[in-house]
Amino acid sequence: MTDDHKSKMQDVQTKHREKIARAEDPGRGLILVHTGNGKGKSSSAFGVAIRALGWGKTVGVVQFIKGKWITGERQFFKKLPEVTWHTMGEGFTWDTQDRDRDIAAATAAYAKACDMMQSGDYDLVLLDEINIALRYDYLDVSEVIDGLKARSDRTSVILTGRDAKPELMDYADLVSDMTEVKHPFKSGIKAQRGLDF
Amino acid sequence: MTDDHKSKMQDVQTKHREKIARAEDPGRGLILVHTGNGKGKSSSAFGVAIRALGWGKTVGVVQFIKGKWITGERQFFKKLPEVTWHTMGEGFTWDTQDRDRDIAAATAAYAKACDMMQSGDYDLVLLDEINIALRYDYLDVSEVIDGLKARSDRTSVILTGRDAKPELMDYADLVSDMTEVKHPFKSGIKAQRGLDF
Repeated sequence: MTDDHKSKMQDVQTKHREKIARAEDPGRGLILVHTGNGKGKSSSAFGVAIRALGWGKTVGVVQFIKGKWITGERQFFKKLPEVTWHTMGEGFTWDTQDRDRDIAAATAAYAKACDMMQSGDYDLVLLDEINIALRYDYLDVSEVIDGLKARSDRTSVILTGRDAKPELMDYADLVSDMTEVKHPFKSGIKAQRGLDF
Repeated sequence: MTDDHKSKMQDVQTKHREKIARAEDPGRGLILVHTGNGKGKSSSAFGVAIRALGWGKTVGVVQFIKGKWITGERQFFKKLPEVTWHTMGEGFTWDTQDRDRDIAAATAAYAKACDMMQSGDYDLVLLDEINIALRYDYLDVSEVIDGLKARSDRTSVILTGRDAKPELMDYADLVSDMTEVKHPFKSGIKAQRGLDF
């Protein structure tokens, strides 16, 4: 090894430790938003769920859009007793073609989410694709934020979906934007079971 | 519901079905790169692993950097018989401060990864944080690409970590860039067990 490399790495280590020492535990669950037009918004939320489960935590999931689809994540998580899974009844909005029904389904799903968030029974609640319901105005963003504010201190919440509302990003502790750089569907490759759903 | 909404949604549905009909199954596993300076690169790879497992597929993981850390994902996946988990021995590079040892550890880990990718035993192999090993030139990008090319047709591979090499992105089927929009550590909030690791 070179002295230069060693001294550079020691510097990185010192800065990293100082940063950790400065950071504080917020004493409450965080609000995370995964948005953007790229892949990884829902899958990274499910990856965080795995982290939480690995530490013995409890997880609740409410899916706002993908009602009728059978997905790998649903089949996997539904088997785990530490996970409560709720999928909104009506499937993709362009499968129902009925705005009133979509609004009713989204509203019922958010009521279920509020129960989970306020119960104190969950360390993590995932509101999967809720940004789509907000984008189509099936849900009101200020009501959603009120629901987040009323959550148990114990509960972190991840909200996924493209086109996150600015008010929601403003309220969130973390916003991560997944950008599409190169996408196989665009080059004519079919969505793959076990990768894309 | 309004006729306008219905007709718009029908249009969306038609376009979506046409797109699906045009897409083809590539008949081989895909190469996915998760990069960028934001959160979600590793967690979305683990979320994709969950998808694969939900469909009864087999998963291999090689972690290139986070050797010494105990993480929720490791504790979770290590319990599953469908997952083969291998963590590189030496931990974060700034914990070792020894470039030769880092290179040896990364090289051994990639040899393990090549065994997995070529064996035909895995539907999905995750090379977690390998981009970091490439960035510090612990691994050579053309050798890594040769390893990917030699994979079994059955095997998809996800490579994670910031600063992905252009050659790797060029070879990949999908590149997703996770951008940091708002990050809790920056506002002085400590990394959370079950969310961040």
